[in-house]
Amino acid sequence: MNSVTIADIRAAAVRLAGQAVETPVLAVPPEAGLAARILLKAENLQRIGAFKFRGAYNALACLAPDVRARGVVAWSSGNHAQGVAAAARAFGVPAAIVMPHDAPAPKRARTQALGAEVVGYDRARESREEIAAAIAADRGLTPVPPYDHADVIAGQGTAGLELAAHLAARGETPHSVYVPCSGGGLTAGVGIALRASFPGVRIVAVEPAGFDDTARSLAFGRPVAHAGGASTLCDALMVPRPGEITFALNRALGIEAATVTDAQVLDAMRFAFDTLRLVLEPGGAAGLAAALAAAPAHKGETLCAILSGGNVDPALFARATGG
Amino acid sequence: MNSVTIADIRAAAVRLAGQAVETPVLAVPPEAGLAARILLKAENLQRIGAFKFRGAYNALACLAPDVRARGVVAWSSGNHAQGVAAAARAFGVPAAIVMPHDAPAPKRARTQALGAEVVGYDRARESREEIAAAIAADRGLTPVPPYDHADVIAGQGTAGLELAAHLAARGETPHSVYVPCSGGGLTAGVGIALRASFPGVRIVAVEPAGFDDTARSLAFGRPVAHAGGASTLCDALMVPRPGEITFALNRALGIEAATVTDAQVLDAMRFAFDTLRLVLEPGGAAGLAAALAAAPAHKGETLCAILSGGNVDPALFARATGG
Repeated sequence: MNSVTIADIRAAAVRLAGQAVETPVLAVPPEAGLAARILLKAENLQRIGAFKFRGAYNALACLAPDVRARGVVAWSSGNHAQGVAAAARAFGVPAAIVMPHDAPAPKRARTQALGAEVVGYDRARESREEIAAAIAADRGLTPVPPYDHADVIAGQGTAGLELAAHLAARGETPHSVYVPCSGGGLTAGVGIALRASFPGVRIVAVEPAGFDDTARSLAFGRPVAHAGGASTLCDALMVPRPGEITFALNRALGIEAATVTDAQVLDAMRFAFDTLRLVLEPGGAAGLAAALAAAPAHKGETLCAILSGGNVDPALFARATGG
Repeated sequence: MNSVTIADIRAAAVRLAGQAVETPVLAVPPEAGLAARILLKAENLQRIGAFKFRGAYNALACLAPDVRARGVVAWSSGNHAQGVAAAARAFGVPAAIVMPHDAPAPKRARTQALGAEVVGYDRARESREEIAAAIAADRGLTPVPPYDHADVIAGQGTAGLELAAHLAARGETPHSVYVPCSGGGLTAGVGIALRASFPGVRIVAVEPAGFDDTARSLAFGRPVAHAGGASTLCDALMVPRPGEITFALNRALGIEAATVTDAQVLDAMRFAFDTLRLVLEPGGAAGLAAALAAAPAHKGETLCAILSGGNVDPALFARATGG
């Protein structure tokens, strides 16, 4: 079951009804004076402050009840952890989360506050997948992968389904949709959902500069890692290579790729603070950063971006906003 | 024309369609663990970042075209200034704004960026009403008062109309609505709109501690000033006494009053950052602060609050969030 279709995403939307927030689609106001019209799907206003709740909840909902009851295990730099923890709590089942020691403190604290057990590891020296696999075998827990899983991808796609419905209801045809991209699950899910309503829409995976593994993989024609050695403020977008399933889906969609610098991401966070009154984390602002960069070349056209998360350390937020 | 009815608010909503943002109603997520269900009308996501655009636009829309064409003048500590400036720009007419020298820098800068002329004055020694009256007489401009005007109140009421429609569509009956209160225009407009759908709903005007002129006026039975001498972070809620029209409407509605401290307001701003991923200014967080304080006593009930604005200095925002 490695394919994901619009029917899978519609089925996920039925499961998520009443659990996930139908987040608003917000327009950049005319006062901002941009050449393009930019519409933003505000997944920072999703439960746990990021789109990740969607995929995690759908994955748990698709498990057989007796399997789900034994609990789940996940690995994540942050938002997927909270998504799985919140979904497990919603179903009343235990969750263990493998999380790097250097994950942002608010993400770790919130995961624990959601009732999950956090198992730390060293990002540079240990494999989170191996630790998670050992815990899963040991305790009979089911792994919930952060992106390379059909049910997770279908869940993330519901954000795109809602965006497409919003656009269709208003008779708007988007030129492009900019999606923050790490493992590629949000990009694939949103891409499948948008293309079902708008066959000509460009789907753009937005990666941090130096973490362009999806761009490189598209060029190579198979999943390859980025060059490594770079740093980024986008802690949510640091996966070394795309997933097998996500890459196959994204390649079939004919997506494009763009990169954004830390400076562009910080500018987008400040723009969101000043002009939208929204809190974005760096990775959550990557799609907006790319859309703002593209706006001058798309006069009068509609560009969409997914605001994928808003879980940010206060000190970094103050740095971005000039506080 | 000092009365405002639900029909006036419905007429204002027709004028505002396509100009004002129909802002989302957001729920505090279950993860926050509050006893009451809190629903928030996010007017910080309104055009110019505050509800004030609604009243200003409605007031300009109600002017005769030849009168409107000569331009408008307003006085404001900030958000009404931006509201009038944006409305004047939408109609393509000039606007002069009388603003205190100590108004927050972003509010002044944004008002100028919207094309308005800013006329400074000394909050302690000069009367903004007199300066505005002189400019109006001198240049033939029409004053747009910040709150004590039926068309302004009807415009602000459209936020309540949208909130009432949201609640009715979901079969929810609110116990109370907490409204940040300065001159009383938002309170009156929202109160009239909510009571039309929910006759038993409590309308609570929320004032900063020491700026409790509406509470005192309700007790005295006529508009009186607060005691003076206090300070508050809520620069948007510093009016010395309620308006004549707003007070009469609020008294007839049988509203209640509550006060919040700076500490409660800062806590609410941090709550909005951490849990809602929204940017609020101090005055914009006053209703949320009161709702959070009330929540333990209202287990299982639905409390609503208006998030009235999000135009805040980055340094103050960092202070509130611990950045």
